[in-house]
Amino acid sequence: METSDYLRILKEEIHSAVFATVDEDGLPVTRVIDIMLADENSLYFITAKGKEFYRQLMNRRYVAVSGMTGGEGSMQKKAVSVRGRVANMGKCLLDQVFAENPYMAEIYPTRESRRALEVFRLCEGWGEYFDLSAKPIIRRSFRLGAGDGQAEPQEGYHITEDCDGCGLCLSQCPQNCIDSSRTPFKIQAEHCLHCGNCVEICPQKAARGGSK
Amino acid sequence: METSDYLRILKEEIHSAVFATVDEDGLPVTRVIDIMLADENSLYFITAKGKEFYRQLMNRRYVAVSGMTGGEGSMQKKAVSVRGRVANMGKCLLDQVFAENPYMAEIYPTRESRRALEVFRLCEGWGEYFDLSAKPIIRRSFRLGAGDGQAEPQEGYHITEDCDGCGLCLSQCPQNCIDSSRTPFKIQAEHCLHCGNCVEICPQKAARGGSK
Repeated sequence: METSDYLRILKEEIHSAVFATVDEDGLPVTRVIDIMLADENSLYFITAKGKEFYRQLMNRRYVAVSGMTGGEGSMQKKAVSVRGRVANMGKCLLDQVFAENPYMAEIYPTRESRRALEVFRLCEGWGEYFDLSAKPIIRRSFRLGAGDGQAEPQEGYHITEDCDGCGLCLSQCPQNCIDSSRTPFKIQAEHCLHCGNCVEICPQKAARGGSK
Repeated sequence: METSDYLRILKEEIHSAVFATVDEDGLPVTRVIDIMLADENSLYFITAKGKEFYRQLMNRRYVAVSGMTGGEGSMQKKAVSVRGRVANMGKCLLDQVFAENPYMAEIYPTRESRRALEVFRLCEGWGEYFDLSAKPIIRRSFRLGAGDGQAEPQEGYHITEDCDGCGLCLSQCPQNCIDSSRTPFKIQAEHCLHCGNCVEICPQKAARGGSK
């Protein structure tokens, strides 16, 4: 799957996601926001000038987003997260937002009532896809636009040449995603939960966590 | 509804919510986390020591959470948000977490695989409930434990004595939630979207935004 596929899942299947910004005290704030438009490399959403969300976006020009597809229980769900820089687009694309999302006219029925609305675009950053319904779980990361060094996802766990193949880590891995067919062992990064059990148990300190 | 009712919605109806923390650069990070337990005044969730989520929680002892109930399309959904201080509880209540959420044994099947898991409690802060399926929409805020000054929700919009009843704001309000039966007009805070249209249009500067 490519970036545009993950963005399509966010816009079409998830649509209502949770957006996080940071307040004046440097603390996180979350709220549910709909994803109005998506193209190959960006997501578009709207908010109103009177909201603290608007002020926090304008202050930091940064947002983190996560959402889930439907399905009964978390085991059936797929999650997509994206974080990175946002650009304010003013009224640009606002008509297209209402054209593609007709239900929005029930919340903002008249042209006057849309006075305070503005469009934002999330277009540079990184994303992660997480499928808990697969066994073992599947995680994949993807880049949005030119990426953004600050938003790059945690580097996965790995095992260094110091591994002597003792096998203690194997019983600790909840996903059984350590390949022990040769030494040094190898962690299958796309199935790894990042729990850190292998790092804690390894007598050789060969299992290593991400750099972030 | 009381705090315990909103927490029950979060745990039972929403269960998988989005949790936001702040990274070392002061930027928000989000991921989907299940709410494992709830009591009268707190929510409990778990994470593993190897995850950046764990490190960010231990650094700031703070989290923001939002989730939605199911239902087709955002217009049918109810959203609950909570933010505030978290306490690390170590292994305390971990057995109860697995007892109340048997599906977790599919992700962490053995006692060894649970080595890195710890329990966190969100117990002091503020929350907000948002029902978009009601017309006009309904919003309510609630307190968690002793509250937390930093997490207090944005104060709603209001109209001061300077209102002369000109009525310009009425056509701008997407929710028709300005009571014009007497002067000064009055905003029905529980139906207000916080869009800020009334503040922008009021010639008397009588409509005022929240303090945060």
